[in-house]
Amino acid sequence: MSTQGQVITCKAAVAWEPNKPLVIEDVEVAPPQAGEVRIKILYVALCHTDAYTWSGKDPEGLFPCILGHEASGIVESVGEGVTEVQPGDHVIPCYQAECRECKFCKSGKTNLCGKVRSATGVGLMLSDMKSRFSIKGKPIYHFMGTSTFSQYTVVHDVSVAKVNEQAPLEKICLLGCGVPTGLGAVWNTAKVEAGSIVAIFGLGTVGLAVAEGAKAAGASRIIGIDIDSNKFATAKNFGVTEFVNPKDSDKPIQQVIVDMTDGGVDYSFECVGNVSLMRAALECCHKGWGTSVIVGVAASGQEISTRPFQLVTGRVWKGTAFGGFKSRSQVPWLVEKYMKKEIKVDEYITHNMTLDQINEAFHLMHGGKCLRIVLKMHAELGNL
Amino acid sequence: MSTQGQVITCKAAVAWEPNKPLVIEDVEVAPPQAGEVRIKILYVALCHTDAYTWSGKDPEGLFPCILGHEASGIVESVGEGVTEVQPGDHVIPCYQAECRECKFCKSGKTNLCGKVRSATGVGLMLSDMKSRFSIKGKPIYHFMGTSTFSQYTVVHDVSVAKVNEQAPLEKICLLGCGVPTGLGAVWNTAKVEAGSIVAIFGLGTVGLAVAEGAKAAGASRIIGIDIDSNKFATAKNFGVTEFVNPKDSDKPIQQVIVDMTDGGVDYSFECVGNVSLMRAALECCHKGWGTSVIVGVAASGQEISTRPFQLVTGRVWKGTAFGGFKSRSQVPWLVEKYMKKEIKVDEYITHNMTLDQINEAFHLMHGGKCLRIVLKMHAELGNL
Ligand SMILES: NC(=O)c1ccc[n+]([C@@H]2O[C@H](COP(=O)([O-])OP(=O)(O)OC[C@H]3O[C@@H](n4cnc5c(N)ncnc54)[C@H](O)[C@@H]3O)[C@@H](O)[C@H]2O)c1
Ligand SMILES: NC(=O)c1ccc[n+]([C@@H]2O[C@H](COP(=O)([O-])OP(=O)(O)OC[C@H]3O[C@@H](n4cnc5c(N)ncnc54)[C@H](O)[C@@H]3O)[C@@H](O)[C@H]2O)c1
Ligand SMILES: [Zn+2]
Ligand SMILES: [Zn+2]
Ligand SMILES: [Zn+2]
Ligand SMILES: [Zn+2]
Repeated sequence: MSTQGQVITCKAAVAWEPNKPLVIEDVEVAPPQAGEVRIKILYVALCHTDAYTWSGKDPEGLFPCILGHEASGIVESVGEGVTEVQPGDHVIPCYQAECRECKFCKSGKTNLCGKVRSATGVGLMLSDMKSRFSIKGKPIYHFMGTSTFSQYTVVHDVSVAKVNEQAPLEKICLLGCGVPTGLGAVWNTAKVEAGSIVAIFGLGTVGLAVAEGAKAAGASRIIGIDIDSNKFATAKNFGVTEFVNPKDSDKPIQQVIVDMTDGGVDYSFECVGNVSLMRAALECCHKGWGTSVIVGVAASGQEISTRPFQLVTGRVWKGTAFGGFKSRSQVPWLVEKYMKKEIKVDEYITHNMTLDQINEAFHLMHGGKCLRIVLKMHAELGNL
Repeated sequence: MSTQGQVITCKAAVAWEPNKPLVIEDVEVAPPQAGEVRIKILYVALCHTDAYTWSGKDPEGLFPCILGHEASGIVESVGEGVTEVQPGDHVIPCYQAECRECKFCKSGKTNLCGKVRSATGVGLMLSDMKSRFSIKGKPIYHFMGTSTFSQYTVVHDVSVAKVNEQAPLEKICLLGCGVPTGLGAVWNTAKVEAGSIVAIFGLGTVGLAVAEGAKAAGASRIIGIDIDSNKFATAKNFGVTEFVNPKDSDKPIQQVIVDMTDGGVDYSFECVGNVSLMRAALECCHKGWGTSVIVGVAASGQEISTRPFQLVTGRVWKGTAFGGFKSRSQVPWLVEKYMKKEIKVDEYITHNMTLDQINEAFHLMHGGKCLRIVLKMHAELGNL
């Protein structure tokens, strides 16, 4: 029986209030309107951005909402005028849209897109500025234009990447956020050259993907910095050649790195979300050319600072969102690279759980002993 | 009678103490050692960096010293092993050295040079870590490796640009600092493309040179920002198309610029040396690609800050020293461009004075009614 054009009632993890456990609810998902796509979400990974908004610290966070943005699924139905995907297509929902026609998309200078931002920024869909989710008539906000903690979600067509059907959806869900962010920070934002010395602050999924990207780019030294020394063993497998725990020295970490590298690194990446590390990452760069890329997301209201002389003497301070990848165009390309074994994905998955275990999964994530946790969204998917 | 190999006694403006009037003294200038060049300085322009160190606010300032770094002259004699210039050559002393063999010079990524930095940073010459200036046996420190407020000075050979002898030395002295800094900030550091929208904070010599550089690069709009509305009339001649006085609005200046430009400028330049303007210059840049270049030199200890989100959403923060120009290689090229009337120089000179009027000249400079003041260093040069 086709569900097309029908409201679908399914399970979703709803964040009713900041910092309160997510509740698995029966949620009604309206059919997609013009320019929209309804996706059956099969697998979802947890990311810190979900936890951040959930915590209530994100001033733009809206409640009640359905979080989640790193996922994979299959198109269930499409709204009027949607031509690039059709029911049955395997897809990755993308929180960075790509419309190919706005000022941003046409600039050739950025992967940001302005088309649906006014709606996704306030948890709604653009066509009618309403939500497609409701529980007993009460609307539930969307999140990041994706809301993948639901068995079905509705997204804008500019936010869907169609991918190779041969690719395992239970793995490639990771290509919706953390892994591309790290790889792209190196390839697109910093453009690391062969022979470069690289420093990575924070060796979670994003930092490890930076290491992987730097290794692929031919970096000669990849220095990993983390306050958890246990991270080094895994990090080696992703390309990290040297490890520094800031707690092991009385000197500021930027000084430790400068001393190790005859004046500083060529490229540094902050993958924690800590503003004092962002400063350290800039200041451990080599005078004249060192470039630092902010990847971590700091808590709202926090500011970065440094002496302007750091920049006048040639250091460059940048940042990246989704690693600078154009989502609809390049996520499928990343999936192909994975299929050709040119990039890792499986290695970032440390836990497989199910939707009903989502609170437990977040608890585990905060414990810091895992990389990515993938949740199976439907019981019928069987064991992984 | 040749002065080669002899101590030369000549006039120089000596800064005995911070913030006390400069004193015209008879100073003994030792002959150049190996790798050094003694230059008869003919013309010198005043720059804010001289005033800054003189004020005592520069923690690296050393006294007594001979300030000055924007000048032109003729080689009087050279030390052993100096091959690239000889007595009689017309030259511009360069505070940014270019040795062509250090890590910096060979990187291809910066105009900074490390060769003589350890000596120039402490007011001395590298070969013996001593000064070539003395008064009655008491050494007087060098400044920025140039010390051009003296009728004769000694510099490292890596700090001398040999220029076209047809070029008027009373004009091209400006190519030793301010004008190249502004042009290069646009051409080398920001690499402004045709059609770009540019904002310039501060319309002194450096800001006007940025405008000139941006116009040459084909910028479509050049927005000048200054708290002195009188600056606009002159600025128009250098390419500024619109003027904003921050005092005319209650809104933060970054908001005013964002509103004028449908989301922000492509490139901004801070040419004042004020850390809150540096922030405004970054924040008035367009999301996704706007690049801000810090050119102004802030007082010691001051810091820049912003929300990291500004960078994560694609803005880039940079700085420039001497506009990224390689001094010995590119100053002669700038002189040629001036000779072909491709860049302005004369237009930046608002006053011509003499060495003995130097205190008066600085007083005038602080008044803000002038661009560059050029001092004639020898009475025999006649009237300009
Ligand atoms: N810019 C983007 O588009 C984007 C996309 C995804 C994630 N992010 C952000 O990237 C950051 C990293 O994400 P992740 O999933 O890898 O997180 P994670 O928690 O798995 O990894 C963070 C790592 O940093 C380490 N760490 C914590 N404090 C530290 C300190 N003071 N010094 C050194 N190391 C420290 C932790 O031990 C951990 O290994 C987060 O802030 C996340 O929000 C940004
Ligand atoms: N990075 C380098 O290599 C380099 C080289 C030369 C000069 N500089 C620095 O560049 C800066 C500019 O030099 P200059 O010779 O053009 O100086 P200047 O004093 O001639 O010009 C500064 C201009 O800024 C304006 N201004 C002051 N406060 C302002 C404010 N709050 N908002 C807007 N405008 C304001 C003034 O009215 C003036 O027109 C100085 O800090 C100087 O030290 C840097
Ligand atoms: Zn994420
Ligand atoms: Zn777009
Ligand atoms: Zn100067
Ligand atoms: Zn050098």
